[in-house]
Amino acid sequence: MPLRDTTPLMTASQLESFLDEVFPQLHLGGRTYFVEEVGPMSARMRCDYHEKHLRPGGTISGPTMMALADVALYAAILGQIGPVALAVTTSLNFNFLRKPGPTALIGDAKLLKLGKRLAVGEVALFSQGESEMVAHATGTYSIPAER
Amino acid sequence: MPLRDTTPLMTASQLESFLDEVFPQLHLGGRTYFVEEVGPMSARMRCDYHEKHLRPGGTISGPTMMALADVALYAAILGQIGPVALAVTTSLNFNFLRKPGPTALIGDAKLLKLGKRLAVGEVALFSQGESEMVAHATGTYSIPAER
Amino acid sequence: MPLRDTTPLMTASQLESFLDEVFPQLHLGGRTYFVEEVGPMSARMRCDYHEKHLRPGGTISGPTMMALADVALYAAILGQIGPVALAVTTSLNFNFLRKPGPTALIGDAKLLKLGKRLAVGEVALFSQGESEMVAHATGTYSIPAER
Amino acid sequence: MPLRDTTPLMTASQLESFLDEVFPQLHLGGRTYFVEEVGPMSARMRCDYHEKHLRPGGTISGPTMMALADVALYAAILGQIGPVALAVTTSLNFNFLRKPGPTALIGDAKLLKLGKRLAVGEVALFSQGESEMVAHATGTYSIPAER
Repeated sequence: MPLRDTTPLMTASQLESFLDEVFPQLHLGGRTYFVEEVGPMSARMRCDYHEKHLRPGGTISGPTMMALADVALYAAILGQIGPVALAVTTSLNFNFLRKPGPTALIGDAKLLKLGKRLAVGEVALFSQGESEMVAHATGTYSIPAER
Repeated sequence: MPLRDTTPLMTASQLESFLDEVFPQLHLGGRTYFVEEVGPMSARMRCDYHEKHLRPGGTISGPTMMALADVALYAAILGQIGPVALAVTTSLNFNFLRKPGPTALIGDAKLLKLGKRLAVGEVALFSQGESEMVAHATGTYSIPAER
Repeated sequence: MPLRDTTPLMTASQLESFLDEVFPQLHLGGRTYFVEEVGPMSARMRCDYHEKHLRPGGTISGPTMMALADVALYAAILGQIGPVALAVTTSLNFNFLRKPGPTALIGDAKLLKLGKRLAVGEVALFSQGESEMVAHATGTYSIPAER
Repeated sequence: MPLRDTTPLMTASQLESFLDEVFPQLHLGGRTYFVEEVGPMSARMRCDYHEKHLRPGGTISGPTMMALADVALYAAILGQIGPVALAVTTSLNFNFLRKPGPTALIGDAKLLKLGKRLAVGEVALFSQGESEMVAHATGTYSIPAER
């Protein structure tokens, strides 16, 4: 079958502006989430280091990682379907592998399926500059019919 | 076999003080997470309504729900093993069922297993005063050997 | 709001016949899966002991438990929407808690949400006659539009 | 830090013999599961087409895919730690993406973490010769202390 065109419909900068509107609470206490890249069926986001993300012991908190994974998958989907549709997270699964140190986190999201009604993707989370994954997530998103 | 005694080792108030130390970032922008009850293999926590938890459209954000589920399971474990041990979240799974309105959220955590090395539990999330679950989570926690 | 009527549309016996058609491979090597009860938003299934389910050490295998959980959730959904629709499993999450001994397994499935397009449920698995859960599962199912 | 040596301790053939002992029920009704490759932190397994794996409609059943994913992760772990240890599956998460046709299935397992007590990995499932993933799984395994 001819493959669907997966060229992103939005640039990283357009995505970032759109996410600012739909996830404003990400920026509570200071802007730290940024869209680094958007590609075919993929997006890379970064969460800068900020003491609001720290847990005692100097590691980045679980909720910070979970928010980054969710928003990175969301960005990858919006990159494909554009800003008009309102995708809704229906499930998320996380495996926490290593404690991330006090530095920026990278979330590499990749869509495994983009159907008419359901998108599924996975996210690898890394501390910036490190090669060992700190957490892995998969998520499913419901895509509204009326687009 | 004789059942293990599951009487909690900590009161709700003791748990809350301990959580303040290990999850201080929960209180960023205003204290909203509270321990309502701790029981045998269980804990109930509440996240009060605050605009920092809101998404556009007037629903409570996913990361707010995820943080509540994680901390409620953590509280149920600490209630059983006491404040000395440092349990670590190893995996979390979420199903988001309904959009919670702009009101307090309740997280009812119940441990399904409390082994020497691994604890597993589930959490039902509700909007306060409502009977329909808004989200369901399961989590696994690694318990350190040296206690 | 007025609650939806959740009286099952199929009896346990009708469900069992229908499952025989759509999951015939469950019965490979001898019939062991049975529908015990179907209720409002729920179903209970049983997997009888058979040596084909055994792992060395005398415990029931993981795939046996996974198949029971999946089919029990499926039965709970069909009980609500009837045998015409073909629901499709979109995700399953399992926590394995204790090793089940060489006896029948019970799967208690409960729907947490039954939407127009998506159903979500959880299953508690027990060894027959025991009170401690051996495994817990959650699952999401896509429900076809044309019904 | 110096990286741990991840050269497998077992060949594909040794692994297959060991799996025959610990998962004999996989071969009920005819041998279909084979170890194709074992590598550093990875293993590839194949499940040959057999009518016992079919669902009506001509697709491969969910339990067949789940068994393949579980055993492929198990093989990847044994490749690293050798046949003496008895790892136990503690959790599995599946996303079902596309219906696999009536052909062999490939399971590519990759370990994300191999700790002293816990191993975590992911598996991509494909129909043989196809490039689109039919299912994705993640799993966690408890590794016994006494090795």
